[in-house]
Amino acid sequence: MSNRIGPEHGLSGDSWAGLCSRLGALTDQLRETQAAGSLRWRDLVRSPLSEEHVDQVSEVADQVRAYYAESAPGGRCKHMVVLGIGGSALGNIALQAALRPQTHNLTSCKFRPGPRLYVMDNVDPALVGDLMLQLERADPGLQHTMVNVISKSGETAETAAQFLIFRDWLRRHLGAERAGRHIVAITDSSQGTMRAIVDREGYLNLPVPDGVGGRFSVLSPVGLFSACMGELDIAHLLAGAADMDRQCSESDPHRNPAAQLAGMLIEFATNRGKPNHVMMPYSNSLYMLADWYRQLWAESLGKRIDLDGREVFAGATPIKALGTTDQHSQVQLYREGPNDKVIGFVEVERFAHDVTIPSGLGVEALSYLEGKTLGTLLNAEKRATEYALVESNRPNYTIRMPEISEYTVGQFLMLWQVATAYAGLLLHIDAYDQPAVETGKVATFGLMGRPGYEQWAEKVDKSLGG
Amino acid sequence: MSNRIGPEHGLSGDSWAGLCSRLGALTDQLRETQAAGSLRWRDLVRSPLSEEHVDQVSEVADQVRAYYAESAPGGRCKHMVVLGIGGSALGNIALQAALRPQTHNLTSCKFRPGPRLYVMDNVDPALVGDLMLQLERADPGLQHTMVNVISKSGETAETAAQFLIFRDWLRRHLGAERAGRHIVAITDSSQGTMRAIVDREGYLNLPVPDGVGGRFSVLSPVGLFSACMGELDIAHLLAGAADMDRQCSESDPHRNPAAQLAGMLIEFATNRGKPNHVMMPYSNSLYMLADWYRQLWAESLGKRIDLDGREVFAGATPIKALGTTDQHSQVQLYREGPNDKVIGFVEVERFAHDVTIPSGLGVEALSYLEGKTLGTLLNAEKRATEYALVESNRPNYTIRMPEISEYTVGQFLMLWQVATAYAGLLLHIDAYDQPAVETGKVATFGLMGRPGYEQWAEKVDKSLGG
Repeated sequence: MSNRIGPEHGLSGDSWAGLCSRLGALTDQLRETQAAGSLRWRDLVRSPLSEEHVDQVSEVADQVRAYYAESAPGGRCKHMVVLGIGGSALGNIALQAALRPQTHNLTSCKFRPGPRLYVMDNVDPALVGDLMLQLERADPGLQHTMVNVISKSGETAETAAQFLIFRDWLRRHLGAERAGRHIVAITDSSQGTMRAIVDREGYLNLPVPDGVGGRFSVLSPVGLFSACMGELDIAHLLAGAADMDRQCSESDPHRNPAAQLAGMLIEFATNRGKPNHVMMPYSNSLYMLADWYRQLWAESLGKRIDLDGREVFAGATPIKALGTTDQHSQVQLYREGPNDKVIGFVEVERFAHDVTIPSGLGVEALSYLEGKTLGTLLNAEKRATEYALVESNRPNYTIRMPEISEYTVGQFLMLWQVATAYAGLLLHIDAYDQPAVETGKVATFGLMGRPGYEQWAEKVDKSLGG
Repeated sequence: MSNRIGPEHGLSGDSWAGLCSRLGALTDQLRETQAAGSLRWRDLVRSPLSEEHVDQVSEVADQVRAYYAESAPGGRCKHMVVLGIGGSALGNIALQAALRPQTHNLTSCKFRPGPRLYVMDNVDPALVGDLMLQLERADPGLQHTMVNVISKSGETAETAAQFLIFRDWLRRHLGAERAGRHIVAITDSSQGTMRAIVDREGYLNLPVPDGVGGRFSVLSPVGLFSACMGELDIAHLLAGAADMDRQCSESDPHRNPAAQLAGMLIEFATNRGKPNHVMMPYSNSLYMLADWYRQLWAESLGKRIDLDGREVFAGATPIKALGTTDQHSQVQLYREGPNDKVIGFVEVERFAHDVTIPSGLGVEALSYLEGKTLGTLLNAEKRATEYALVESNRPNYTIRMPEISEYTVGQFLMLWQVATAYAGLLLHIDAYDQPAVETGKVATFGLMGRPGYEQWAEKVDKSLGG
């Protein structure tokens, strides 16, 4: 607020009060939109859809486990390869990173719940080729390897290419019949290219729910299945999200954290010259949640045209950073560079297993650390950085997570999804489309020689030179 | 240029010509500064310092290898834990990620050159605790584990805390005498807290060269030692950097890529309203180079005061992105959001092992992919995205790497280091200090109870509330 960082950069009490009265009206508007059925992603955490999905996902996970237990010596699914990109990948990565140790994939079966998880969210030949080589060495006949393809249409070029590669690879190692048992598809329940393939080949499958866009799909089977295979408590995840959904339905903005966040960030972006929003968790586990958030915020809000058809070039740039690591990389810029950012800290109050800094070195300059814990140091660094930013008149806020659990991560996901909905209303844009992605898709089809898209290859060559 | 993306957002031929004449003068200025001895980081790739460092680093690596070969059954260093943060970590991570497979740490000894590498660049208790647990399981007596602590002073709180923890941990598992043989320190050659510890405990050690700041230290022993342990060709890395150093010493800006890059980016940042620079490699391997670059650009250029003492709040915000992955996350914003960014692509022309997309699925909609390679698809996606950005009048450029090798990565590192030097001159700021980091450091000391810093704890509590 302006009493801390000055009137040029901070919000005044009056401007905040004005914002809050506007936010209250938006809550009513969201409630009506919800009732009209166009916010299906909020239904994902409500009865009956949430229970249906937990049941469906758990059942498929059980079938997969039963298959591996029966079909291979040593009997379990040890390697899970997810083929997906954007909203079909980021949620899976974020949940795994937040709720499993960073060392999960290095840990041997004996100590590791669930399979190793590899999310192939690119078509880099080195990424894909090296993983296949690694799996062929670790699991020569691929008896313990499962491939989970996630694509609503089946036509996203990256996922389609990977699917062709991994399907062929499984067939070469396992034979055509068994290969199909090692594939689980998450796709549209009734139409599209992947649906047709699933029906023909008989893969186990789960739905991408109707009316839920990729970046709002983490709490659907798209994000829940790999979490369930990894033995995370997906009911608890949805319960946290549901509680946050209720909290973020409060008409009073002071009791509604999503409305507050969106109001504050959009005010800074549009009226205070701070269109950059840094999400900076003080926890390696939460860093990938910032990556998930990046898609949500960028793709939902970055829009040329508003709802009245005016050219607005709306949007705010999400930036991920990691504390304390980026104190030694980005904080110099955040304090002394252009004052064009809001810094959002995420702080963890209690770590499940803290580490105590031992004594005994006998060096005076370091003795102040002895007997303290790393958690204490981490949060002291965060507080020191917060202080340093305030000293430089840089707006910042802190989200405190009591602990990292399925429940709190579910809360966090829903908090930002609802905040994004508010931000879309405040910017008066459609937060649910992504028109600008289309040009790149069709231009890729043209350059790759897909029939019917020849004119796009010509357009590209004409624009960029042959 | 303006003929492609319009006069509002593009550079005109005239403005570019004006810029180029200015850049030529800066090259002379850099040459004089270099001769006066204050650009020591450029000396790192020149004779005799480059040969000295290759020899020193190789000799210590040989001693380490000999020790493990003699002291343990199975005889090699299998796990290398780097303790460092900021410039003591980012270069190590970037080299490993660029030049070793993403699966390196998952690969068994038999197929893996060099040790697994773990860079502990944070004090997150989960990160540290989980790694220690993992290593105790993989290497119960820690006979195959080496700890490499990197700190010029030894007083950086994060690295000091980690050092206390890992030193104690080695001593508990190996006994006091052997533990010291499992530690290699990279620190100041003559003074400081870590130097005193090294001298007392007799660790193998390598120098942080005088006059080289952390973010310019990747081509010194700071970055070279873990690379050498990982059996990368560090002489080849330095040769690539040296060739780029020569190229970037050309007075004619058209023959000097660092001058061109800096001139273009600073012009866009200061006169065209585009202070955000996205580095977007189309290669997972190169993504961590963007992270390394982030520190270089942010910490060097983000400065409140210019060389004449005027308050300027200079700087440009580096953002890392990954192609194609972020096409499905950020490109909507980059095309339709505020036109406040320059997008820098990095493209790899030849991948060492490409992967061919097989045929045989028999689905019409996907047949255009069959028989093509992933490398072809990846670069078509990049070209399509470049086209889409130009269509939206968004400035962008492409750096083409013929292949990913020690030589080209060395070139890339030096290119950006010299570009940063030019950018500092163009902004008329000191690119080599980081005054804003100091406040957070002393405030942390205060909050952690370090004697002599009590007043800082009071200041923080007064500012933020107790």
